[in-house]
Amino acid sequence: QQQRHPLRYRSECRLDKLNNLEPSRRIEAEAGFTELWDEEEEEFKCAGAIAARHVIRRNGLFLPSFTNAPELVYVVQGSGFHGAVIPGCPETYQSDESSQFQGRGQGRRGEESEQRGDRHQKVRFISEGDVLALPAGVTHWIYNRGQSDLVLVSVLYTANEENQLDENYRQFFLAGNPQQYQQQGGRSRRYEGQGQSQSRRGQQQQGRRRGQQQQQQESFGNIFSGFDDDILSDSFNVENELARRLKGEDDQRGHIVEVRDELRILSPRYERGEQGERESSEHEREREREQREREREREREQRRRRQRGRGSYDNATDAASPNGLEETLCTLRLRENIDNPERADIYNPRGGRITTLNSFSLPVLSNLQLSAERGVLYRNAIVAPHYYMNSHALIYAIRGSARYQVVDDNGQTAFDGELREGQFLVIPQNFVAVKRASEQGFEWIGFRTNDVAMVNPLAGRLSAFRALPEEVIQNAFDISREESRRLKYGREELAVFSPGQRGRQ
Amino acid sequence: QQQRHPLRYRSECRLDKLNNLEPSRRIEAEAGFTELWDEEEEEFKCAGAIAARHVIRRNGLFLPSFTNAPELVYVVQGSGFHGAVIPGCPETYQSDESSQFQGRGQGRRGEESEQRGDRHQKVRFISEGDVLALPAGVTHWIYNRGQSDLVLVSVLYTANEENQLDENYRQFFLAGNPQQYQQQGGRSRRYEGQGQSQSRRGQQQQGRRRGQQQQQQESFGNIFSGFDDDILSDSFNVENELARRLKGEDDQRGHIVEVRDELRILSPRYERGEQGERESSEHEREREREQREREREREREQRRRRQRGRGSYDNATDAASPNGLEETLCTLRLRENIDNPERADIYNPRGGRITTLNSFSLPVLSNLQLSAERGVLYRNAIVAPHYYMNSHALIYAIRGSARYQVVDDNGQTAFDGELREGQFLVIPQNFVAVKRASEQGFEWIGFRTNDVAMVNPLAGRLSAFRALPEEVIQNAFDISREESRRLKYGREELAVFSPGQRGRQ
Amino acid sequence: QQQRHPLRYRSECRLDKLNNLEPSRRIEAEAGFTELWDEEEEEFKCAGAIAARHVIRRNGLFLPSFTNAPELVYVVQGSGFHGAVIPGCPETYQSDESSQFQGRGQGRRGEESEQRGDRHQKVRFISEGDVLALPAGVTHWIYNRGQSDLVLVSVLYTANEENQLDENYRQFFLAGNPQQYQQQGGRSRRYEGQGQSQSRRGQQQQGRRRGQQQQQQESFGNIFSGFDDDILSDSFNVENELARRLKGEDDQRGHIVEVRDELRILSPRYERGEQGERESSEHEREREREQREREREREREQRRRRQRGRGSYDNATDAASPNGLEETLCTLRLRENIDNPERADIYNPRGGRITTLNSFSLPVLSNLQLSAERGVLYRNAIVAPHYYMNSHALIYAIRGSARYQVVDDNGQTAFDGELREGQFLVIPQNFVAVKRASEQGFEWIGFRTNDVAMVNPLAGRLSAFRALPEEVIQNAFDISREESRRLKYGREELAVFSPGQRGRQ
Repeated sequence: QQQRHPLRYRSECRLDKLNNLEPSRRIEAEAGFTELWDEEEEEFKCAGAIAARHVIRRNGLFLPSFTNAPELVYVVQGSGFHGAVIPGCPETYQSDESSQFQGRGQGRRGEESEQRGDRHQKVRFISEGDVLALPAGVTHWIYNRGQSDLVLVSVLYTANEENQLDENYRQFFLAGNPQQYQQQGGRSRRYEGQGQSQSRRGQQQQGRRRGQQQQQQESFGNIFSGFDDDILSDSFNVENELARRLKGEDDQRGHIVEVRDELRILSPRYERGEQGERESSEHEREREREQREREREREREQRRRRQRGRGSYDNATDAASPNGLEETLCTLRLRENIDNPERADIYNPRGGRITTLNSFSLPVLSNLQLSAERGVLYRNAIVAPHYYMNSHALIYAIRGSARYQVVDDNGQTAFDGELREGQFLVIPQNFVAVKRASEQGFEWIGFRTNDVAMVNPLAGRLSAFRALPEEVIQNAFDISREESRRLKYGREELAVFSPGQRGRQ
Repeated sequence: QQQRHPLRYRSECRLDKLNNLEPSRRIEAEAGFTELWDEEEEEFKCAGAIAARHVIRRNGLFLPSFTNAPELVYVVQGSGFHGAVIPGCPETYQSDESSQFQGRGQGRRGEESEQRGDRHQKVRFISEGDVLALPAGVTHWIYNRGQSDLVLVSVLYTANEENQLDENYRQFFLAGNPQQYQQQGGRSRRYEGQGQSQSRRGQQQQGRRRGQQQQQQESFGNIFSGFDDDILSDSFNVENELARRLKGEDDQRGHIVEVRDELRILSPRYERGEQGERESSEHEREREREQREREREREREQRRRRQRGRGSYDNATDAASPNGLEETLCTLRLRENIDNPERADIYNPRGGRITTLNSFSLPVLSNLQLSAERGVLYRNAIVAPHYYMNSHALIYAIRGSARYQVVDDNGQTAFDGELREGQFLVIPQNFVAVKRASEQGFEWIGFRTNDVAMVNPLAGRLSAFRALPEEVIQNAFDISREESRRLKYGREELAVFSPGQRGRQ
Repeated sequence: QQQRHPLRYRSECRLDKLNNLEPSRRIEAEAGFTELWDEEEEEFKCAGAIAARHVIRRNGLFLPSFTNAPELVYVVQGSGFHGAVIPGCPETYQSDESSQFQGRGQGRRGEESEQRGDRHQKVRFISEGDVLALPAGVTHWIYNRGQSDLVLVSVLYTANEENQLDENYRQFFLAGNPQQYQQQGGRSRRYEGQGQSQSRRGQQQQGRRRGQQQQQQESFGNIFSGFDDDILSDSFNVENELARRLKGEDDQRGHIVEVRDELRILSPRYERGEQGERESSEHEREREREQREREREREREQRRRRQRGRGSYDNATDAASPNGLEETLCTLRLRENIDNPERADIYNPRGGRITTLNSFSLPVLSNLQLSAERGVLYRNAIVAPHYYMNSHALIYAIRGSARYQVVDDNGQTAFDGELREGQFLVIPQNFVAVKRASEQGFEWIGFRTNDVAMVNPLAGRLSAFRALPEEVIQNAFDISREESRRLKYGREELAVFSPGQRGRQ
């Protein structure tokens, strides 16, 4: 007999067996592809998050789009431009006919009659090691302006309270005809899954939905494709033919398109005089300038926070701002480098380093309810047993590999294996994990589902054992005082340990 | 085989087909009626909200009650008094025997021996165009003191975190015998729904519940009806007979009762001397005085917020207040006019106007997690394609009609039709909507499920297209630079557009 | 046919019948036992909370552990030490060889060679009447240093947003072999429940799980038992044999172990010279000193809050702190006495007293989203009809008994009975409750699921009836003006009423 199992906002997480996960499907486009991890995996479901990897080829443009879930992106490789549309904010980047940018443009593409300059919102330069924070519903685009592929790995946090739709991830494209993306990505995929994770009801839906899909197979498209031509034409005040182009009906390029010529984005880096210099040196100076700019941004933010208490996305438009332009949501910092070794929070020359990024260093993260940690572990080095107090951690292996062991509340091993480049491992909240880098060493980026995620190490300096009185350790483990001291003070290192000798022969 | 479909705090929203919704049932009472929208509609379920319309006839009193969900009310028509019980707050309205109010009262109802004046908490005057914010659990009553019907439309946000019960809306009456209200309204209705949305378990419950209802049919009542007479008698220190009157057992008047004589509420407007003047002119002056009072309230709030960071319901009782009476929860502003054309946030003399109300202008909304928009669209005018970034929008048509198109993430049309006076349309988060007023024009009130709801327009000034660099538009839609400029700059208006010519012939 | 019942983050609460609840199982250990209430009870499920009672015998040590849910503990009887591990915080309690503590220790346990003093984090003295707040994921231990049993009753708030796992309560032990605890306590219990509350799917799981349990029966253990010996040995830099002791494999003592000799915890109270004095008098002075220390802590917190707006666990590490040590998370106050009659918030010499503790008086509660009320009701005294506006209330009877009546939104009696010592009663949000102490009087501790829980009394001074205008009462209940006055002013007492005469003969 069917009985109800009352749930209160979450079903049971069955996490006694974790897996190192690779992407389960791939969506090709003209100038790159997207790989998605299976959102039906128990770990992702329990964490309320979805993972994706985007590869944007040289000169590729990821079309403007937005999602119902906030997204934290890590730039694994390459460099490019990122643009975010913050509604209500002015277009602060502008050129005029006499500007160097325009001059250059006219020189190279004289066939176009450019009577006046362009105006648009801020464009951000992103490169390897950057973390990019994207609040839910913000339209954004990414362009690869470098020589190599631009590789991004990202976590979409569908369980974030800013997402008021269901847990399915939905991507809304403003342009193109991302048919394959929508058919296979996101929500519709659920209806096409194999029987394995299907309920009876799910199968009915699947049947019904499939029918719909067959009937409407040609109707997938961007957000304009559902509107009448007349409405679009009136809205943009253009003729019907151009309005129809918004729908991208015959577009076969997918969600990442190749830019015909190089995209000439108005950006401070092009405004300087030294065009003759080598790109690399210019690039260097740009990085420096950027570094300075970011410092200034941080200073402004701290000033604001000191005035107003904890600065958050929500009160960023506070009327108390002395200056409407500088001090608002419109200048919100969305990007931060987390890879610079000089910024490491924990460093052990014999073990490696860990850098964290939370809402104290990047305030927009308090809106995303996400934070990040970037780690480098030298060969055979160890990260002490530790647990995340108030978040899950989604670990992505950037380079090398490591052996992970993860233990649950019953003391049973939920995971014991190798995590290799390109794989994700989800470590549930409070589960205890330890990792040892392989001979090749190990680098990772961790996405954590709390904007001020806290980790509690169980060995080494500043660990739980150091915090406990000796006699508590002694009695808890039924050992001698001398043994309790060795457990307590055996490691003077902090969190990242040099390779051990004792356990290896 | 039955398999589990793990959910994380929300089931799937099936929103590929939206509807313009009319109330599904009506609850009559002595001096008015309440109409409720069907809470089982997918849109309302997904938004976690319920809609209702109350019509209180002249001299009608909506009995004191509270609900488990915060409520945002819009006064569509008429005027009246609203009283809210803020626990722990003093009775700040008081009269003595020599007051004009009392004098008047004695003159007209001399049969009652009134030895001393009344004392009670603040009473608010409400009239057409006011928004009224009611936190969950706050007892309140409404009285129609005007000449015409007092019509209120409201949204109850059961998904608000202040509601710790389930998603069912529950109304607790302090008085009367609102039997019909409870049998048909709120939760019990779920058990009586038709088979359509019934699970097997639901049907069992239904059976069981129906049985209960038949047995206990006479026992529905207000919150006092479940207590022993003795307990009530002791609690109020009155004789059993009067205590029994609290239960309203023989009361047949329903949830809106007719006041025998006019309700003489102690209120600043009656304290003035000019009784001989015409009501209309007095009414005018009252409005003016009120306007001034509201301005003062706003000033005080802003002062507080500047001192304390973002002022919210939670920290309203902050010990830092210099003055216990003035600066606390007790003087929380619950009402704000949103209809005054002079307060419009967006105005286009050829298109119409939109006014918004969020927690910056009415701080209590940060507790409700709701905000409102009031719009007027002239004949054939257009609201540009736009989406709500971080909220659903529940649109109620006040007057006239408009054609809406709403598109989902697959580019498919989720709604394409007319929204007419008295109907609700729910626009889910991130879905893209456009509307064109009919020949009669269109007026609406929108309830949004975020206290700082953000809208992103896709055409016109300050739109997403303006924020994008020309070359991104050019490459995204595969059009010429000149075409991208026309898309970007074709409309100089902001959000509310004058009627188009292009799409209509 | 199986149909879907879409839920939005919570299933339906069936609360038409509440019960006074006693613990459903008991977990024995060497030096005490834990009793757990049945988490499958509808009331607990709906409140998203779980209740437990711990009895720690003289010299017993509750092993270091942490849970996925924040916990609010009330000390019903006895006294002891409490230690919490706040990660990243320094060990602020330290001794050297010449200290009195060490001297004393060496004198009594000279057999151990103590070369240097101990260092550990702050240890808190707890005693009867204290409330202890434990954020999720914080490792803590408790030691009974008194002469009698240390009795704790606690509520674990699994629905707190800090818990990102499912609603099951999971306890992670850092030491020992709490096999019985894990087999019967927390999550695994669900799989062993009787058919009553089992779904078909649940039964399958049960079968599967049981199989697992039988196979792995010996593998339950603490969090170290799932790691390889080598990894542990390297992590702690100790030999394999000692590392293996961490797993507690042969430990038969359970989760509360007996300390062999008295636990000599480094603590300010032992640092003073007067060792010859009687314990009781020393105890007295300690309480005084503690009182002063707590006052100072409160002052510091208020100062911080005045500077920063509402002080919360989240911004406790705010960079604005002038002093890294004193002003951070590391010195967070976790404990507060709620039993001292002098601190009563409401007091009626003929009725009793009520003391509340919320995040204004103990800021860490804003992280727990819990608050507490401690009540004493003299014989036959009454607590007026009241409802909790924004929380559930989990009432635990400490001494004596009371008759409770609880009424739901339909005016039906959800509970009418005696609540006796050692029982829990859950009063759902908005349900109206009244209680009358028995001849023995009544004492209770209430746990409320909101850090600023608000109560609305319906009778007496500052009640809803006082806030309503007389004419509203008159018309709502259809009574005379004189009767409405008697209802409104019949009781001059506030919330806690002296025994009534009217209803009792």
